[in-house]
Amino acid sequence: MESTVTNAEKYFGHFCSLLAAYTRKTARLRDKADQLVKQLVDFANTENPEMRATLRNFAEELARVQDYRQAQVERLETKVVTPLKFYGPQIKQTRAEIKKCKHIRSNEIKQLEKLDKLRQKSPSDRQMISQAETGVQKASADASRTTHQLEETVDAFQTQKLKDLQKIFLDFVTIEMVFHAKAVEVYSSAFQTLENYDLEGDLQDFRAKMRGVYGQKDARPRRDTAPSAAVPWSRPSQSAQSTTRSQRKEEEASEDDFPEEELEEEDLGGWDRDSINGMRTSKSRK
Amino acid sequence: MESTVTNAEKYFGHFCSLLAAYTRKTARLRDKADQLVKQLVDFANTENPEMRATLRNFAEELARVQDYRQAQVERLETKVVTPLKFYGPQIKQTRAEIKKCKHIRSNEIKQLEKLDKLRQKSPSDRQMISQAETGVQKASADASRTTHQLEETVDAFQTQKLKDLQKIFLDFVTIEMVFHAKAVEVYSSAFQTLENYDLEGDLQDFRAKMRGVYGQKDARPRRDTAPSAAVPWSRPSQSAQSTTRSQRKEEEASEDDFPEEELEEEDLGGWDRDSINGMRTSKSRK
Repeated sequence: MESTVTNAEKYFGHFCSLLAAYTRKTARLRDKADQLVKQLVDFANTENPEMRATLRNFAEELARVQDYRQAQVERLETKVVTPLKFYGPQIKQTRAEIKKCKHIRSNEIKQLEKLDKLRQKSPSDRQMISQAETGVQKASADASRTTHQLEETVDAFQTQKLKDLQKIFLDFVTIEMVFHAKAVEVYSSAFQTLENYDLEGDLQDFRAKMRGVYGQKDARPRRDTAPSAAVPWSRPSQSAQSTTRSQRKEEEASEDDFPEEELEEEDLGGWDRDSINGMRTSKSRK
Repeated sequence: MESTVTNAEKYFGHFCSLLAAYTRKTARLRDKADQLVKQLVDFANTENPEMRATLRNFAEELARVQDYRQAQVERLETKVVTPLKFYGPQIKQTRAEIKKCKHIRSNEIKQLEKLDKLRQKSPSDRQMISQAETGVQKASADASRTTHQLEETVDAFQTQKLKDLQKIFLDFVTIEMVFHAKAVEVYSSAFQTLENYDLEGDLQDFRAKMRGVYGQKDARPRRDTAPSAAVPWSRPSQSAQSTTRSQRKEEEASEDDFPEEELEEEDLGGWDRDSINGMRTSKSRK
């Protein structure tokens, strides 16, 4: 019976700390996914409309899974870790009752020993033996009553323990099951989002955008070229544009495979690092 | 165009490290659950047959979820993290081509500047101007060819990038979806396992076991009491038994609520710490 309590103390302690750790690790997984959501949204803002929409929707769905994970974490805390924590004080109380019972029982044994000694040493001393017999009877009655109380306590403890074990792990399983089912649902939708992404449309957009911008420009004014800002890959500037356009002219004549794609820097203005940082809007849950 | 590469470098780097971290955290979650499985099996061995079977089955199901999680971790490594890692070298190569193109373009600008200066300073020096014009034409042709090559490279990069983005996140979603679907399946079965646990049967077993052991014993031989090992809650000994039995007698007469439950220590021998430790068999996956 004592081992029932001892084992409960030992293993419920293990369960509690392991499930608390499990919950913490789940929370860290959520944090990482939240960071991923944020980066996806930031990156989406640097992409063309087709991929931007796809990534934003995907990020939203990934964020939704994290919302469910957050609910999972909270439920695990409330319905699994906390009830297991309560076993600490409960076990202490049961242990205290066991200790009390031990003490009362050892008194009974002392009384029995006293009686045995008397019977051996002074078998004729009726009065002493009678006194000792009364002592034994009283101690036995005490021990019996205490033992009975302890049995009730341990039985109640065992009943509660078995019930709680079932309840706590059923709750654990239910919480997990709900989360996983929701995750399947949301990921199915995320799958469709990604599957429906129109790569060809996006590429056509990417190519047409540059051609479109070029189409609105006149032929290059070569004289505008200024050495200080003339590096074509630098941030857009009038001088860089003119150089780019000058190159463009010759490209038009060439038989390249991608006639529509041009190096129009100003059109990519929104894509450069500074602009992207400025555009950042956190759609992340946190 | 350069920002396309710059953004890819930045965000694919983020995606890679975040998804690697996500995978690691998933692996840690698996480790915690594996430890829980081990403790469940150890604890099951200290329980009566009903709870023992329930906990063992539940532990097996929990271990099965971890097997799926292990597959998830491996797939995330192979199909998500590794492809993202490949972007490092790929981006470096594209960057090198951009650098080369920049260099050739700046040469074109230098030639243009040279020609402009000549025209201003020595407008009559036809030979020099003609030479400079040839230089500009050559540099322009070089720049055009390189620009065209670069366009092809960046277009190919963009195409591959968009395709890979879709593929990698579709793989991510698929891997997650498969795992969550399997988890729902196994947890549903685990729910049944726990739901089917027969608490009443287990308690009857717990009570009957003690009564059964008591029923086989004769009335206590009081004289056997030996002080050295007489503490009832210590490990089983003949003397302790006799004391216990002596108490039992009086309990039989009392009108307690749990007449069948007795403190028969020897019956609980298998439950004490030493025996439990000896019984430990790890059923855990690791």
